[in-house]
Amino acid sequence: MSRLPCEEEVLSHIKPETGEYTRIWKVAKELLSVVDESGIAKGMVVGSIARDTWVSGDRDLDVFMLFDPSLPREELEEQGLSLARGITTRFGGVPQEKYAEHPYINTNIVGLDVDLVPCYAVESASAIISAVDRTPFHTRYITEKINGLVDDVLLFKQFSKAGGVYGSDQMTEGFAGYLCELLVLHYGGFRPLVEAAVRWHAGLVIDIENHQAKEFSDPLVVIDPVDPRRNVAASLSVTRMFEFVEFCRGYLSAPSELFFQPHEPRVLGFPAFQEALSERGTALYAITCKTPGEIPDIVVPQLRRSVAGITALLERNGFVINRADSSMGEEKCMLLFELLVDHLPALKRHSGPPVWNPVNAEKYLKKYIQNESVFSGPYIEDGNYYVEIRRRWQDAGALLASRDLTNASLGKHIERSMKVHGWDVLKNEDCWQEAFVPFISTFLEHRSPLMRIQKARESAEPQNP
Amino acid sequence: MSRLPCEEEVLSHIKPETGEYTRIWKVAKELLSVVDESGIAKGMVVGSIARDTWVSGDRDLDVFMLFDPSLPREELEEQGLSLARGITTRFGGVPQEKYAEHPYINTNIVGLDVDLVPCYAVESASAIISAVDRTPFHTRYITEKINGLVDDVLLFKQFSKAGGVYGSDQMTEGFAGYLCELLVLHYGGFRPLVEAAVRWHAGLVIDIENHQAKEFSDPLVVIDPVDPRRNVAASLSVTRMFEFVEFCRGYLSAPSELFFQPHEPRVLGFPAFQEALSERGTALYAITCKTPGEIPDIVVPQLRRSVAGITALLERNGFVINRADSSMGEEKCMLLFELLVDHLPALKRHSGPPVWNPVNAEKYLKKYIQNESVFSGPYIEDGNYYVEIRRRWQDAGALLASRDLTNASLGKHIERSMKVHGWDVLKNEDCWQEAFVPFISTFLEHRSPLMRIQKARESAEPQNP
Repeated sequence: MSRLPCEEEVLSHIKPETGEYTRIWKVAKELLSVVDESGIAKGMVVGSIARDTWVSGDRDLDVFMLFDPSLPREELEEQGLSLARGITTRFGGVPQEKYAEHPYINTNIVGLDVDLVPCYAVESASAIISAVDRTPFHTRYITEKINGLVDDVLLFKQFSKAGGVYGSDQMTEGFAGYLCELLVLHYGGFRPLVEAAVRWHAGLVIDIENHQAKEFSDPLVVIDPVDPRRNVAASLSVTRMFEFVEFCRGYLSAPSELFFQPHEPRVLGFPAFQEALSERGTALYAITCKTPGEIPDIVVPQLRRSVAGITALLERNGFVINRADSSMGEEKCMLLFELLVDHLPALKRHSGPPVWNPVNAEKYLKKYIQNESVFSGPYIEDGNYYVEIRRRWQDAGALLASRDLTNASLGKHIERSMKVHGWDVLKNEDCWQEAFVPFISTFLEHRSPLMRIQKARESAEPQNP
Repeated sequence: MSRLPCEEEVLSHIKPETGEYTRIWKVAKELLSVVDESGIAKGMVVGSIARDTWVSGDRDLDVFMLFDPSLPREELEEQGLSLARGITTRFGGVPQEKYAEHPYINTNIVGLDVDLVPCYAVESASAIISAVDRTPFHTRYITEKINGLVDDVLLFKQFSKAGGVYGSDQMTEGFAGYLCELLVLHYGGFRPLVEAAVRWHAGLVIDIENHQAKEFSDPLVVIDPVDPRRNVAASLSVTRMFEFVEFCRGYLSAPSELFFQPHEPRVLGFPAFQEALSERGTALYAITCKTPGEIPDIVVPQLRRSVAGITALLERNGFVINRADSSMGEEKCMLLFELLVDHLPALKRHSGPPVWNPVNAEKYLKKYIQNESVFSGPYIEDGNYYVEIRRRWQDAGALLASRDLTNASLGKHIERSMKVHGWDVLKNEDCWQEAFVPFISTFLEHRSPLMRIQKARESAEPQNP
């Protein structure tokens, strides 16, 4: 399939030049030989650099150190970290210990962001001891098959980045690099993939090696060619999946370089924020708390769970929510809630037990017959008791500021942070905290990636008279 | 079973004395002989007077005129009405034509409210031509079986009246007189019936003659002993049924004459009404319209349907309703709505089609991409489109006063009345219309019949310190 001019143009920008290629591989090879010299492990470059699928300007170099599988796990970690620290120092870097399934070293060597990761050199992907042991198999699989499709992978990665759906981290919930490569392989190129994606539906299964050995309920299932019991697309959310579907539709109907330009979120100024608040007429509440010390892949899902828990708490109390979201900042996290109704009358209707159960009915009546705060009832409707009583929280802000908040279903570390350090409740204009201006702007302007492009294009074009 | 003192006391008040009995039967027998003398029909007293189950002070005398089933329906009506008019005049009454399944004459004769009803003298209840033909069979069945239980029927009728559940009309949705008699027969008396009722559940089937020939989904099913395909309790609502169950429980736990005293609804004064409104903090809206000319059994269900339709309209527009009810007055009807939320922000969230359907998705995007009133979106959530746009109605009162109201699902005659004569929308204190003061009072004080007694008793007793 011939490429469109815009695709050729994009490729000319994102394809690494020979110089860049040579520079990176020079460092990589030096690192590998030092690992091999150690005699205790074998070095291997993995990731997009190993597969020639990196986009120009990427600076991530992943070097795995493969140890013998007979080594006990503790010793693997100890020897692996010690070797990695030695290498780092030798290349003038400062070693930083990080932690995925087990610890590894991250450092900066001549401008490259280098990961030195110890793993086991297992014989097959089904014999892995830890998840990182699988990575060398991915690299070997892609390296072997990707011939002729490298440019397509580059285009597709750039396209996914521009669409905001690239990355399998918890914040993005999008497409991992390996998933991008598999999809390009499966459909035979960038354009065939995009053309197929416009007809994707939830529950689609792609099984390249035709060896699926497990059922998944994820929106997209791509069986790992090196592990029949793994879904490579497990962390893709249904929202990201369909934002991608829509993005592909938009591209096919009007292909342009716009679909490869990384999205620069529009940031509002304070007056525009004030105007948006007043036009919407809703009530905006922010809860801010100290950011827990854990990594984003742990904190972000907990923030999401906390937003769901607090939304449920607000709804149980009769408040009406339009939309909610959260953001993890360096120092503080923000949980943002836009309410359609944040103030309620004193009266609330409380549903009781069915009348046919005499024991529960009697308990219920005892509780309410002498209750001073009863407005109406108990009365019977369709066989059930109801009573109209005084509501505990008439004001959403008061509820959010109260200790009742910590009874909501919150993420573990968020709950601990709130209980130890407390939290602030901000309303409307007070939500405008500098660190969260981009987050709040995106929250209010909220559009799908394709709609952002359309809107930008429309504003750029002269209006018809 | 021996009676409680309070039951004996009640009976002494409600059992007709010999004088009352003789007076009524003198009139009844005179009417019967005039019907028989006509030679075209045979007279029969039906209803509670025929069965000796009338409560002292009741003044309803039902005389049926049984015609030959070979007579065509038109002639039955013509001859029946003509005979009834003649009799009425002869006894000094003024004939008033009324209409159930076919026409009959209602009149007042020496203080009695007399119905003269033409019907067919069919051979069995399964051969009836019109519903009124069934009544003579009910009278014969009860007259034959009720021996020894007449006082129990009287007690039970009085008990049901006091509980507000007596009457199968559309306003009450309670127990018909015939149903009361069957229940007393089935359980063998007033107290055994009350003791059984505390354990009633929805879906209970009572089939005295063990001949049920049809399934019913009503909350209580009592198969008519004279018609295996009819549920005598069809017009009993589930709410009245369980108000009765609760009333029985209350009586058994503390039997007293209070359970036989007709309920005198407490009527609020205007200051108490104002205070209730302000304490509840809710927004009360009343719609009033001209009462249609039809009988209550037609208008009342239509009012109920209209209340449900308008409630649905309000909820579709985002308003939150606590409770609603309606009242049919002589000149005007009132539909009353108590809202927890009657004012909403400009913004509303509008849910669109799923993204996977390209045709619908395209139509949807075309509609909103250039729409000036879009606050946010279109965006994608869980595979579906959403957009946040300007809401049509921010104020519930404005919606109720608009022509949109007649798009709600309304009862036929209510809709016609509104379209022809218009309607008024009243808010809070303006709802206080003189003709509807008892209705509004009961709406705000809303309690089950047992709770009304408990509350009254409690207020009467001195408070504990």
